[in-house]
Amino acid sequence: LSTAAASRSSLKIGLVPADGIGREVIPAARQAIEALGSDVPKPEFVELLAGFELFTRTGTALPEETVQALKESDCALFGAVSSPSRRVTGYSSPIVGLRKILDLYANVRPVISVAPTPEEKPSVDLIVVRENTECLYVKQEEMTPTENGREARATRLITERASRRIGEMAFELAKARQRKHVTIIHKSNVLSITDGLFRETVRSVPRLHEGKYDDVEIAEQLVDSAVYRLFREPHIYDVMVAPNLYGDIISDAAAALVGSLGLVPSVNAGDNFVMGEPVHGSAPDIAGQGIANPIASIRSAALMLRHLGYGAPADRLDKAVDEVIREGQVLTPDLGGKSKTQEVVDAILKRI
Amino acid sequence: LSTAAASRSSLKIGLVPADGIGREVIPAARQAIEALGSDVPKPEFVELLAGFELFTRTGTALPEETVQALKESDCALFGAVSSPSRRVTGYSSPIVGLRKILDLYANVRPVISVAPTPEEKPSVDLIVVRENTECLYVKQEEMTPTENGREARATRLITERASRRIGEMAFELAKARQRKHVTIIHKSNVLSITDGLFRETVRSVPRLHEGKYDDVEIAEQLVDSAVYRLFREPHIYDVMVAPNLYGDIISDAAAALVGSLGLVPSVNAGDNFVMGEPVHGSAPDIAGQGIANPIASIRSAALMLRHLGYGAPADRLDKAVDEVIREGQVLTPDLGGKSKTQEVVDAILKRI
Ligand SMILES: CC(C)[C@H](C(=O)O)[C@@H](O)C(=O)O
Ligand SMILES: CC(C)[C@H](C(=O)O)[C@@H](O)C(=O)O
Repeated sequence: LSTAAASRSSLKIGLVPADGIGREVIPAARQAIEALGSDVPKPEFVELLAGFELFTRTGTALPEETVQALKESDCALFGAVSSPSRRVTGYSSPIVGLRKILDLYANVRPVISVAPTPEEKPSVDLIVVRENTECLYVKQEEMTPTENGREARATRLITERASRRIGEMAFELAKARQRKHVTIIHKSNVLSITDGLFRETVRSVPRLHEGKYDDVEIAEQLVDSAVYRLFREPHIYDVMVAPNLYGDIISDAAAALVGSLGLVPSVNAGDNFVMGEPVHGSAPDIAGQGIANPIASIRSAALMLRHLGYGAPADRLDKAVDEVIREGQVLTPDLGGKSKTQEVVDAILKRI
Repeated sequence: LSTAAASRSSLKIGLVPADGIGREVIPAARQAIEALGSDVPKPEFVELLAGFELFTRTGTALPEETVQALKESDCALFGAVSSPSRRVTGYSSPIVGLRKILDLYANVRPVISVAPTPEEKPSVDLIVVRENTECLYVKQEEMTPTENGREARATRLITERASRRIGEMAFELAKARQRKHVTIIHKSNVLSITDGLFRETVRSVPRLHEGKYDDVEIAEQLVDSAVYRLFREPHIYDVMVAPNLYGDIISDAAAALVGSLGLVPSVNAGDNFVMGEPVHGSAPDIAGQGIANPIASIRSAALMLRHLGYGAPADRLDKAVDEVIREGQVLTPDLGGKSKTQEVVDAILKRI
């Protein structure tokens, strides 16, 4: 999956902290990347604006300059966006917009617990591969007034093309893992045409790649029972591939298994660009207190670097994070600790 | 919510076991109702056909006679349906069909753990109130061939009318509970129009009922973080009200908290009819072995009776079930036991 590390002399990284704790965890990830020194090309950070708070101030959630600057960057890190508490005319989520505009069609979310020692296997070790551009996220909605009140309709789009490329991503990731197992998540007992197409297309991927994925096992599960089984028997999963909305729900569900949403990273990946993004939200309840967990964001930076071909420095980041978790001395409140964001960052930096 | 118990001399109960373990657990529920004796009007059971297996044999998943007989019954119990493993032309889920045809607009799913003693509070005690007729379940789907492959579209319908009546059901249920708390589940940060309408309409319910629900607290949560928090802090929930698909996923997620899907009952309720239905599926992997857990089905019978106004006999069923769980001697394999379905039924019958 990794785009071969070009012989870059510098690495232009767009930073979009956006709302709430996004503004606390993205600076943390920045420090972690800086700490890698000459292991990666010299990072050039570009601070960019987006978010709901920006929208309330300026009427724009995703400025054209941000999009343009991202297109000129090598990669990016996105923080989190707040959600309006009522319908706001003209507002549209900038993260959903960016995924589409930059065609970041895969949202890859590894959910891995940290075993007590580096030798032991983690009890949860799975990757959610979420389709990132369509499903109900196409945002084609309309409201119709009728005699019996209003009716709202949304379109759920599933295409063969998007299902195939997300399927390819899932098989490619599974092939590189020990278990080599893909579970297709769907609800084709109700959505026989849309989810039927998703299921069938993902299943057909190995046939298109003569023999390449012959060693990958395929299973499938209805989304409702997948969430149930995720809690009861997480070890049955290796790579879970899902349409957009199911992937959104399943990755949050999986995060509950490893102790905190504050630990789970993701990348939004396309053929030409990659953007790291912690799975957690903007957490308005704790924003501004300096106690947000920086780990998901730092791990997202690691995923982003790995995707660009910088596997060794990415491993260094992950190892440092794992050590801090294992030691259990310097943790933010979501993990039962009492440390501040910057204290956790410092503990991680010391181990990089 | 309960339809006042009419002074019926008999109770006509449609039984639709349908597929797989549905055929093992519906007979269990029947025995439990029979054991209530003169506490309920003399039950008259009507055995009815439906299901995927029926479809493969006859080409019909939901015969007209079944629908007609249900319309002439006082209430019903539905088992479970199997899902085809590939798209099957002409097949449509009979349970989804029945909910619509009989206008059973609310799917009420209490998820309650059994405390070690009857005096203690259960650690999980919530009700999922799922809208049961629309959302992606309207099954308006179409496939379009294009130059870049096939594209499939489904319509997600949210109406003010259905959102209002499910909201009323949720507030009515919350009002009767100790906590009196409703959480609206939605994803209006992406689906601002459809889920915006759902959220806004449910929120407006108290205003339509001058003062009636003033003591009910309202909260809301995005569906992804709701699933996360359900696992981390289930005690924050009392009544969760959700559009159809989120309700489907959330009730399975909640079931994982109480040990087994085999424990969780539901009713599909409309203004004129009620149909009990265990939340579990047809479980083809264990069907025919006589080891299915009959508890969800027996509890569904209790819910159905309570809904019809027979609260005391419903309590007798629930108490008998709770005792058997508490004693922990006679349990099916899903709960770690070694007993057969009929042994669990017998243990329950003895305590009714
Ligand atoms: C903020 C929201 C639009 C977003 C999504 O639903 O994709 C978030 O939940 C995520 O998982 O990245
Ligand atoms: C069998 C299926 C159509 C059904 C649903 O999705 O409603 C089931 O999962 C349920 O929860 O009753």
